[in-house]
Amino acid sequence: MIDKFEIVGLIAAILTTSAFVPQVYKTWKTKSVENLSLTMYIIFFIGIMLWLVYGIHINSISMILANVVTGFLALVLIFFKLKYKNDIQK
Amino acid sequence: MIDKFEIVGLIAAILTTSAFVPQVYKTWKTKSVENLSLTMYIIFFIGIMLWLVYGIHINSISMILANVVTGFLALVLIFFKLKYKNDIQK
Repeated sequence: MIDKFEIVGLIAAILTTSAFVPQVYKTWKTKSVENLSLTMYIIFFIGIMLWLVYGIHINSISMILANVVTGFLALVLIFFKLKYKNDIQK
Repeated sequence: MIDKFEIVGLIAAILTTSAFVPQVYKTWKTKSVENLSLTMYIIFFIGIMLWLVYGIHINSISMILANVVTGFLALVLIFFKLKYKNDIQK
């Protein structure tokens, strides 16, 4: 049913998605956001949404899963950046 | 020749790839790496290499381009993290 390259895609999805977890955790814990680029995360988020459209079109379960979760994590980092930036008033 | 969803993929590739450029530039300029997670970039890089394998398999020019360039940028950030971490001795 699921070919071996779909397994590669699923592992890729888990790795690139979970790569954001340490950054989210670190940012949440330290509340230090001055080295995170807001521009980066906004551009990235838009790109992820387009990858999601692409993934749906080619019917790739790996791409759909990866981009839904990564998009959510990118939104969390954008939220942190805006929240902690205002807290520090820097 | 190239369908409209491949255009979506190419725009997605440009956005998610160029999203790394501000971070690379900011890190190069400030030499400040303490808020960048080395774990994140190593896991991310491995994931990107697997997406590249997947992209080659499904013959997606968008995915191949995106993952070659993003993989290179992730390597640059890993290099900065290791280099500036040692410089600061923190």
